[in-house]
Amino acid sequence: MTGDSEFDRDSAVVRREPGVYDIDLSDGWTIFGAVNGGFLLAVLGRALADALPHPDPFTISAHYLTASRPGPAVVRTEAVRTGRTLSTGQASLFQYDDEGDEVERIRVLASYGDLATLPDDVRTTATPPAIPPLEQCFGPDDGPAPVDGGSAIADRLMIKLDPATLGWALGAPSGKGQMRAWFGLADGRDADPLSLLLAVDALPPTAFEIGLKGWVPTVELTVHVRHRPAPGPLRVSVTTRNLAGGFLEEDAEVWDSEDRLVAQSRQLARVRLG
Amino acid sequence: MTGDSEFDRDSAVVRREPGVYDIDLSDGWTIFGAVNGGFLLAVLGRALADALPHPDPFTISAHYLTASRPGPAVVRTEAVRTGRTLSTGQASLFQYDDEGDEVERIRVLASYGDLATLPDDVRTTATPPAIPPLEQCFGPDDGPAPVDGGSAIADRLMIKLDPATLGWALGAPSGKGQMRAWFGLADGRDADPLSLLLAVDALPPTAFEIGLKGWVPTVELTVHVRHRPAPGPLRVSVTTRNLAGGFLEEDAEVWDSEDRLVAQSRQLARVRLG
Repeated sequence: MTGDSEFDRDSAVVRREPGVYDIDLSDGWTIFGAVNGGFLLAVLGRALADALPHPDPFTISAHYLTASRPGPAVVRTEAVRTGRTLSTGQASLFQYDDEGDEVERIRVLASYGDLATLPDDVRTTATPPAIPPLEQCFGPDDGPAPVDGGSAIADRLMIKLDPATLGWALGAPSGKGQMRAWFGLADGRDADPLSLLLAVDALPPTAFEIGLKGWVPTVELTVHVRHRPAPGPLRVSVTTRNLAGGFLEEDAEVWDSEDRLVAQSRQLARVRLG
Repeated sequence: MTGDSEFDRDSAVVRREPGVYDIDLSDGWTIFGAVNGGFLLAVLGRALADALPHPDPFTISAHYLTASRPGPAVVRTEAVRTGRTLSTGQASLFQYDDEGDEVERIRVLASYGDLATLPDDVRTTATPPAIPPLEQCFGPDDGPAPVDGGSAIADRLMIKLDPATLGWALGAPSGKGQMRAWFGLADGRDADPLSLLLAVDALPPTAFEIGLKGWVPTVELTVHVRHRPAPGPLRVSVTTRNLAGGFLEEDAEVWDSEDRLVAQSRQLARVRLG
């Protein structure tokens, strides 16, 4: 189930007993010291894939409670309902306070199925985002750190941002709540349904292009995985239409190299002005 | 908390003990014998509003397990985390099988806050849907039943569909996955955050306008309530962009009479061809 990639190694969970999994969260997937929310979702997604009879998260909803830090954690799962084509499960990730008591970080509800069994019909009006070729897009290595290179996770991801959504890094945000990029894992591991859970929450916040700075913590993130991604880099497009009352939504789409819409997500995030 | 409206009366829950609520699900909110998923979400939302220290569902994620029928039900809630501005809770609705054992129908995770405390700033690029004036739109009473009049819930809702999304009822679906309507409660009760949970799941399925017939059961539905709605009818716009592998997403927006985007939702639904 896990290969020798950084992502597989670091998101692997060890079954302690049926439904309970241990993991030592690496410091390799952090942003400003907190473990990335999409990476955490992949950890929970992997535990549920083991605990449920179906392999793929068709829809997974996460509510973020407290920030996760590198170090030991335990994932507790519950099979809520097992059906022929869909199973529903719940999972929580806990860490430990100074007294060794469990503190819940994130709780998820998810419905799992088997993407390989779905019919191949597509009747979609969605079209892939217009992103320039990868070599015309920009990552942390391409000059004055457009993506913050201080975050450990930046070394593990291949993110090349569309120049049209890079104004924020040059002090000239477009004012539009859009962020688009080519996305992959830095070690070349191909995408799969679990890494899609990471892909939807890995770009810089759309708030930056609206002209805001500071932290945009996720309150809730729901991901629909719609198709198994083909090998090759992904295109990720994130859009915010409504920033109001100190909250905003981020809608992400992930497209694979065969022009399939492989994942859709929406999150509610809070704007903490820096 | 509840007035004398049909919606308030029928979605009211009775506290049996702390965190546990009873309700007798009315047959007035059914479609083809099953209780409407948005109405159920409002019932769970009401129970959580009582169980948590904050009044309003900022984001609520529901996974639907089995169809709910009119009759007795119990809602069991859990306060997962209580914070200063946000609280997170979980709730499940159960009914009873022939042996009297509880059968879970729907499970939700939700983060609650207080809409009244949010700053009034809005920086949005979203614009209200272009729906003709209410008197130019069509409901069940306006001719050859464009909305199925056989469903009990139709008598409790004021739904007037945009003629541009009514082709399906005349045998000529547009092929676009769009449905738009004016929406209210038939007895004139004004909208509030709980009735918004109903509004996002009350229109005919977008699949009808794509040319499909039959049942489109919800797998998962997440609603963000973004602002307390002003009095007056709401405008609801639902869009499907990706029908693939037998599943589709439905994205709904709800706008109030003051042109505020008051709710956003997304659901993953299954297409069961009729």
